[in-house]
Amino acid sequence: MQQTIKLGIVGYGNLGRGVECAMAQNPDMELVGIFTRRDPASVHPQCPEIPVLSISELPDWKDRIDVLILCGGSATDLPKMTPELAASFNVVDSYDNHSQIPQHYAAVNAAAEKAGTLAVISAGWDPGLFSLNRLYASAVLPQGKTYTFWGKGVSQGHSDAIRRIPGVVDARQYTIPVPESVERVRRGENPVLTTREAHTRLCYVVAEDGADREIIENTIKTMPAYFADYDTTVHFISAEEMKANHAGLPHGGRVIRTGTTGLQNENKQTIEYHLELDSNPQFTSAVLVACARAVVTMHKRGETGCRSLLDIAPADLSPLSREELMAQLL
Amino acid sequence: MQQTIKLGIVGYGNLGRGVECAMAQNPDMELVGIFTRRDPASVHPQCPEIPVLSISELPDWKDRIDVLILCGGSATDLPKMTPELAASFNVVDSYDNHSQIPQHYAAVNAAAEKAGTLAVISAGWDPGLFSLNRLYASAVLPQGKTYTFWGKGVSQGHSDAIRRIPGVVDARQYTIPVPESVERVRRGENPVLTTREAHTRLCYVVAEDGADREIIENTIKTMPAYFADYDTTVHFISAEEMKANHAGLPHGGRVIRTGTTGLQNENKQTIEYHLELDSNPQFTSAVLVACARAVVTMHKRGETGCRSLLDIAPADLSPLSREELMAQLL
Repeated sequence: MQQTIKLGIVGYGNLGRGVECAMAQNPDMELVGIFTRRDPASVHPQCPEIPVLSISELPDWKDRIDVLILCGGSATDLPKMTPELAASFNVVDSYDNHSQIPQHYAAVNAAAEKAGTLAVISAGWDPGLFSLNRLYASAVLPQGKTYTFWGKGVSQGHSDAIRRIPGVVDARQYTIPVPESVERVRRGENPVLTTREAHTRLCYVVAEDGADREIIENTIKTMPAYFADYDTTVHFISAEEMKANHAGLPHGGRVIRTGTTGLQNENKQTIEYHLELDSNPQFTSAVLVACARAVVTMHKRGETGCRSLLDIAPADLSPLSREELMAQLL
Repeated sequence: MQQTIKLGIVGYGNLGRGVECAMAQNPDMELVGIFTRRDPASVHPQCPEIPVLSISELPDWKDRIDVLILCGGSATDLPKMTPELAASFNVVDSYDNHSQIPQHYAAVNAAAEKAGTLAVISAGWDPGLFSLNRLYASAVLPQGKTYTFWGKGVSQGHSDAIRRIPGVVDARQYTIPVPESVERVRRGENPVLTTREAHTRLCYVVAEDGADREIIENTIKTMPAYFADYDTTVHFISAEEMKANHAGLPHGGRVIRTGTTGLQNENKQTIEYHLELDSNPQFTSAVLVACARAVVTMHKRGETGCRSLLDIAPADLSPLSREELMAQLL
């Protein structure tokens, strides 16, 4: 029996809770503690036996933790937290601000190289498993075009944007791919899709009593970047209905590449990857945990610096040995 | 501009022809020659400028080739050819006899380690991209079950088995997943599927004039291992109809894993990977070519021995740099 991987969680929101859930499914790992910026006494883990500690105590845990999973947000937490903690620990994060990934990579890589630690950034499903599928599909079918469709699923950023409108009590926004466009992509038409042609946005809103619903609806539909470029539908519902029918955080989507092979490009070849997730944060957490396993294995082999899923040999994500994988999965 | 990868093809059947086609789509590679066991004068490449040489001349090409793609069959060619050629060259093969992969691996690994070369075996889509998806899905969702469905597509082994029946002139066999079973898997029922419940077999047969069709049909349907355990349908057609409607070699399939997350396994998470291929051999060739690129990159880093796609960091399959991948795909 090999030693268990000793894992710490930093930040206890939806992602941190998801990592905690994943522990029961990964017997090769052990959760040694949850580290928080809040008062530890105010944080109540789902499994009451897990110690909750102040993030300020982390330096004392350096020799007792193999890898930290950083469960902060991409907007302000991770750009600071990941390089800082990579200076002392192997780390995994889910940094998902696509356009800023190169900068984040550079900061984390510098810190990890200097400290001799290993970091995996941008783990999850997009960036993450979807990125992997974009890469595999384009490497195999150079002549073709890749499309990513998100949904049906809840966009927390768009839901938050609606909640900031005066008169709105609560909101949930679903991103939905346009079925006709998905079909065109599958048929190999390689269409140029406008923002409006790729996705629609469906909003459920609980308004304050007496609020002007027409103004709220118009504010949503004309909001630049978030909604103005989309066909957006707004439904006003009661707080009870919101709680009963929209409490979850489902998501998913598809990466589709249609390419051609043959001297005359006479053969169409289609690769489609599809996720349908009841819980977006728990699935993201599950990817983070698999990456944490890879980080420990790769670091033992002497690797240091910053990586993403694109750099991880798939076998390193699995608890199975190379021999078991060859016999059971290959 | 970096140097092109110098590639040789060994064996010029459907796979070898597919690799030749892929060259036009991969400008970082250069096909230096096709090596054959036949009389080179009898082999006519699709691109007439490509030299065709006897396999006995290969030793002279050792310093002019970065990687050989071995396009022989898994039954008798590759078990001998891959270890032999790995003693002098970096190689890629598509060995697909699943139950014998560990033995093949051991033989190839020994030869490659001794010679300081690098080999990738079992590249293609199953084994290959499907294996990758079985691995990623099970690493992310340990609590769940993975299913592989093949088809709709032509099984060459089953078509050949029919052709060996007395009175049969030609045959084409399509493997088809049972739609209800695919739906049960997607719903997360994790069913135990019998052979019959997973796939059906559809056969098109050209019979000799005067042959007893009833005997042929019965011989097919009762053939052990190939057909007896399946619901099999047999259609007799003319040679003209065979040529007009069944000349291609389409294939494809799906890897589906439905798992659960959450402390009470309360959330269903579904991962589905789907291939729909007009040309099975050309797609397999396209995977071989991407693996050939990875072999050259990994060998330059000092790696030797035997690998499969499960061991290849995805980024090594792509012609793009790590910086480009991070900016464009991650």
